[in-house]
Amino acid sequence: MSNYTYLKEAVYEANMEIPREQLAIATFGNVSGVDRAAGVMAIKPSGVPYHRLRVEDIVVLDLNNVVVEGTMRPSSDTKTHALLYRSFAGIGGVCHTHSTYAVAWAQALLPIPNLGTTHADHLTVAVPVTDVMSDEMILRDYETETGHQILDLFSRGSLNPEEVEMVLVACHGPFTWGKDPAKAVYNSVVLEEIAKMAYLTLQLNPAATAIKQSLCDKHYFRKHGKDAYYGQGC
Amino acid sequence: MSNYTYLKEAVYEANMEIPREQLAIATFGNVSGVDRAAGVMAIKPSGVPYHRLRVEDIVVLDLNNVVVEGTMRPSSDTKTHALLYRSFAGIGGVCHTHSTYAVAWAQALLPIPNLGTTHADHLTVAVPVTDVMSDEMILRDYETETGHQILDLFSRGSLNPEEVEMVLVACHGPFTWGKDPAKAVYNSVVLEEIAKMAYLTLQLNPAATAIKQSLCDKHYFRKHGKDAYYGQGC
Amino acid sequence: MSNYTYLKEAVYEANMEIPREQLAIATFGNVSGVDRAAGVMAIKPSGVPYHRLRVEDIVVLDLNNVVVEGTMRPSSDTKTHALLYRSFAGIGGVCHTHSTYAVAWAQALLPIPNLGTTHADHLTVAVPVTDVMSDEMILRDYETETGHQILDLFSRGSLNPEEVEMVLVACHGPFTWGKDPAKAVYNSVVLEEIAKMAYLTLQLNPAATAIKQSLCDKHYFRKHGKDAYYGQGC
Amino acid sequence: MSNYTYLKEAVYEANMEIPREQLAIATFGNVSGVDRAAGVMAIKPSGVPYHRLRVEDIVVLDLNNVVVEGTMRPSSDTKTHALLYRSFAGIGGVCHTHSTYAVAWAQALLPIPNLGTTHADHLTVAVPVTDVMSDEMILRDYETETGHQILDLFSRGSLNPEEVEMVLVACHGPFTWGKDPAKAVYNSVVLEEIAKMAYLTLQLNPAATAIKQSLCDKHYFRKHGKDAYYGQGC
Repeated sequence: MSNYTYLKEAVYEANMEIPREQLAIATFGNVSGVDRAAGVMAIKPSGVPYHRLRVEDIVVLDLNNVVVEGTMRPSSDTKTHALLYRSFAGIGGVCHTHSTYAVAWAQALLPIPNLGTTHADHLTVAVPVTDVMSDEMILRDYETETGHQILDLFSRGSLNPEEVEMVLVACHGPFTWGKDPAKAVYNSVVLEEIAKMAYLTLQLNPAATAIKQSLCDKHYFRKHGKDAYYGQGC
Repeated sequence: MSNYTYLKEAVYEANMEIPREQLAIATFGNVSGVDRAAGVMAIKPSGVPYHRLRVEDIVVLDLNNVVVEGTMRPSSDTKTHALLYRSFAGIGGVCHTHSTYAVAWAQALLPIPNLGTTHADHLTVAVPVTDVMSDEMILRDYETETGHQILDLFSRGSLNPEEVEMVLVACHGPFTWGKDPAKAVYNSVVLEEIAKMAYLTLQLNPAATAIKQSLCDKHYFRKHGKDAYYGQGC
Repeated sequence: MSNYTYLKEAVYEANMEIPREQLAIATFGNVSGVDRAAGVMAIKPSGVPYHRLRVEDIVVLDLNNVVVEGTMRPSSDTKTHALLYRSFAGIGGVCHTHSTYAVAWAQALLPIPNLGTTHADHLTVAVPVTDVMSDEMILRDYETETGHQILDLFSRGSLNPEEVEMVLVACHGPFTWGKDPAKAVYNSVVLEEIAKMAYLTLQLNPAATAIKQSLCDKHYFRKHGKDAYYGQGC
Repeated sequence: MSNYTYLKEAVYEANMEIPREQLAIATFGNVSGVDRAAGVMAIKPSGVPYHRLRVEDIVVLDLNNVVVEGTMRPSSDTKTHALLYRSFAGIGGVCHTHSTYAVAWAQALLPIPNLGTTHADHLTVAVPVTDVMSDEMILRDYETETGHQILDLFSRGSLNPEEVEMVLVACHGPFTWGKDPAKAVYNSVVLEEIAKMAYLTLQLNPAATAIKQSLCDKHYFRKHGKDAYYGQGC
């Protein structure tokens, strides 16, 4: 019997959204969740196709990457997830995919500009993109350093990870997070959609500019914060 | 028991077309319908995923946004729908989505030119795009003002809302309408398709120009008006 | 009882391929078939959604557009189909759709260049595009004149309709044909795919040029003619 | 009874992945597998639609293209597959498709640059593209010469077919291979995805450059070779 059944089920369900939402082919994505009281995270095992994944395959680790439960090898990106949990105290789930349009922006080394209300409903700034990692960092502890690239970017840009729940890692692809695993993968769905919308917008009009601040704030704050009136308030 | 079962069922069915036709991810769309004799409109509740939506969740309001029936909060875009019903006497349904190509045109701040017969089968002019809203309007009563942006555009352009059943709201996305909720969502499907066709056409040939008037009229009037011969005449 | 059950069933089945192959949204496509011995053609009724279409709805007409069997109004494009049957003696089915990429080329007023073997497997020349129709022709007998535009194009270009089974009508979209209704709709599927491939190729490399003649001929003649060795020879 | 049931089943299953993964329309793809101990290969019969394909239709041949078992004509591309098996001793399956984005690159006569980690997870170099075949080769023995174009390209570029399991044949489309038929078709799925990602990246940023060598190697070697730590190590 597992002590982490609830967490493993939540992580399993969130991972299964990846193929359903066509966020990645093959095994190119992974979702994790954290139980802060228990001091553990749960994550997809490495290289297992989604259609073969079972709840009992989900690997449980402490936040220093030591396996607590499970017989399979955890996702090769586990250290990135772990660092995000250690650094962003308010998040409960992390999702990494290779969704097509988000990867294109990451490979183009360009942030995704905030061009409209679909984007502004979720964040008020461009989706940031990290620098390309230095050779030293790549050779040292690659997956942990991937997390540091994200942390440095958020620190330098004074970005709040509870307001900006998505990032592009240069030459690689998106990481998203949220209050739980389901919200993390939801943010990956949103990111892929706004990545596609921004791509098409700039193909139509290369001079398209960011949404004006007042309209951006209106949309963001009708969905977030104490005066939000979108949704059912729960 | 509801006095508005028929209306709520029609609105429910039309909303369920949004995910079936891939017009929006998540909850990014809403359809309403009006019963002019009863003086009420019905609309999707705010933020409810389509796969959880039930007929009984549909909210009924009068045309001044006062809830008449239903326990859920109505769509955050309800005031826009209501203003359209108050102003466009001939329409019976309104649909708002964030469909990808239509949003791209709205974010590019460009009307969709009428480049061929697929477009001309439905309207004889470009799909119009509103101005970007002023800061004053955004701060005042945003959703009602979104409706006013549409009304002003139609007024200035002398557009007949029974002939032009679709519009792009700048930096935001499409609104469409029609004689009933099903026709409103049908128009959103058509709009997304002509938005994609026009995008591809201009990528192939940036000098592509609008369809000639005689061909445009031929297609429009074989489907609309007293001499129409498309369809089964009912 | 119908005397044309076989023909109506074949036409029904071919029409149902249109939504399955995503060749058109809504009702934007129609397939017909001809029984030359009986002197009749059968075609989809106008404006009927595919999911409501039944075999008994298929309309049978003689080749001068007089209804022989059926209570519904035939496709508004019937006269175009009929003229093609009267003029192209070797064809047994015709398909018209508004498939997205083929329409884009038609709206761009550009023939689809033969850029590779997928195209050359089916025809050795560019997919031709008609001129834009004159105002006189549009006002006279639009659907018959659409057929004349196709015939004139094939005549001027010395194109053999049994070798070139597809055409783009300017500002409108594709017509394809073949030995029977199933082959006609198959050619629409192929056309949409080569239209997309050519679009992407030219976006990647605007200087891309047509496939060399020897490679084109090799591919065409391994599938067609007396020395063909593709398929099972039946 | 067949002596090659296992091989035919594996080849059948891999071929059925082509429509499932939308790698080709109609019949535009074929997968084969080899049993090196038995000295035979098995391949899809020519021109048979996937939904009609049965295990017993798979054709078994020796590596000189002589049919050993089966009543149907093998794929017209059989000689290309056979030459690859004779020349690349380490491969067990070959897949050829006309997947849309890979074909676009092949028609553009451009290698697919290695722009990010999705690509680098699978190979460290650009996906190579052959020269256009000479008229002499086309007329001589086209399908065998297609194989020679691939071999020459790998020889000139000092490419190892166990490290670079994919190639674009100019003006034609992709061939991929792997340790077995399933891996060969998996590589076609990956190729189509990286072809699309690279297309989008260059549309966004025409100046995008290849991934840096250290990052490329990190991703490749965490999945391949003796120090790999991706997957479950089996």
